[in-house]
Amino acid sequence: MLVTKPVNQFLDELASSSPAPGGGSVAALAGALGAALTSMVCNLTIGKKKYAGVQDEMKAILVQAEDLRAQFTRLVDRDTEAFNKVMEAFSLPKDTEPQIALRRAAINEATKEATLVPLEVMKHCIDAMALAQEVAANGNPNSVSDAGVSALLLHAACEGAALNVRINLSSLADSEFVGWKSDEVDSLQKTSKMMVEEAMEIIAEKMEPR
Amino acid sequence: MLVTKPVNQFLDELASSSPAPGGGSVAALAGALGAALTSMVCNLTIGKKKYAGVQDEMKAILVQAEDLRAQFTRLVDRDTEAFNKVMEAFSLPKDTEPQIALRRAAINEATKEATLVPLEVMKHCIDAMALAQEVAANGNPNSVSDAGVSALLLHAACEGAALNVRINLSSLADSEFVGWKSDEVDSLQKTSKMMVEEAMEIIAEKMEPR
Repeated sequence: MLVTKPVNQFLDELASSSPAPGGGSVAALAGALGAALTSMVCNLTIGKKKYAGVQDEMKAILVQAEDLRAQFTRLVDRDTEAFNKVMEAFSLPKDTEPQIALRRAAINEATKEATLVPLEVMKHCIDAMALAQEVAANGNPNSVSDAGVSALLLHAACEGAALNVRINLSSLADSEFVGWKSDEVDSLQKTSKMMVEEAMEIIAEKMEPR
Repeated sequence: MLVTKPVNQFLDELASSSPAPGGGSVAALAGALGAALTSMVCNLTIGKKKYAGVQDEMKAILVQAEDLRAQFTRLVDRDTEAFNKVMEAFSLPKDTEPQIALRRAAINEATKEATLVPLEVMKHCIDAMALAQEVAANGNPNSVSDAGVSALLLHAACEGAALNVRINLSSLADSEFVGWKSDEVDSLQKTSKMMVEEAMEIIAEKMEPR
């Protein structure tokens, strides 16, 4: 598993000439980092008398943020696995007509899976961004910049995952699947952009000197 | 050192109720991930006959990207150290007038240092983004989405670091230092926004089906 490796070793493998892990896994990791920062703001708010009014809210957000962090963490490895399956399909024999047909089907199948993983990352980013907005608005104000970094990373994760969906869609012939998924990506990107802008407005307001 | 910890343990510590590591270290880590992806695109271009015309360029970019990655990696720990020093200064005794004056000076000193670390992250992001643009434009086109994720993470790192500079500036009384650094942050943020938009245009063009 990629996520059990030390951070600096993960970075070394990323930088290396091996094509995986690549941008897809990094997008999922950025999502995990974003969710973890939202959890941190919850944890820095929970149990403090000063924020008595938001204890239940913060506890509920923490549960959701930790669930999303676990899902993002799994997607770091799932993206690399999906990428490796595409590579395996490409390396199938192509000497006879039946082999060529089998190989083409395997490549298509694997490429579709490789679009679904970053699409899942995008959806989780939207869910996590809603939590980041809430902790920015109602969490410990000393941690408002952490809520901001959370939102920024979730948006970058969503945009980065979108590039990975699109590059995989561009090699698929199934125009119905491609059209449907392209629309979904468009819509998720618009939502993420709107939400990160909202988050940044909340944060700018909170950071203004009083 | 934070970066010698396994990725999932780093995430656990981030999510915990300990205020450090926080958003500042994560911004530096996002920079390291961005630089590593640019290095990867270089490594997937170097040594391939198909890209003979850009070998020298890619080798030169790789050296710079790896240097920036090393600097970002150091800044992950430096940001947490700077934050801890601010916390230490706050915990100094404040029972007598001289103690109060000493404590105030220590807080100011530590807070200034805590603004300089994310400011350094921002500057490195701009340098790394220039490299991400180059690999997007001239590197292995199969890796263009990786160059894109690199640029997106560097922009998020720059914006996240900006929040950390600003939250520290907001507690400083030295108006000359604050004004000067605020202008610097504004200018770096504008540059990063312009550069990530340029990068995304390059990438969108490359990803268009031919």
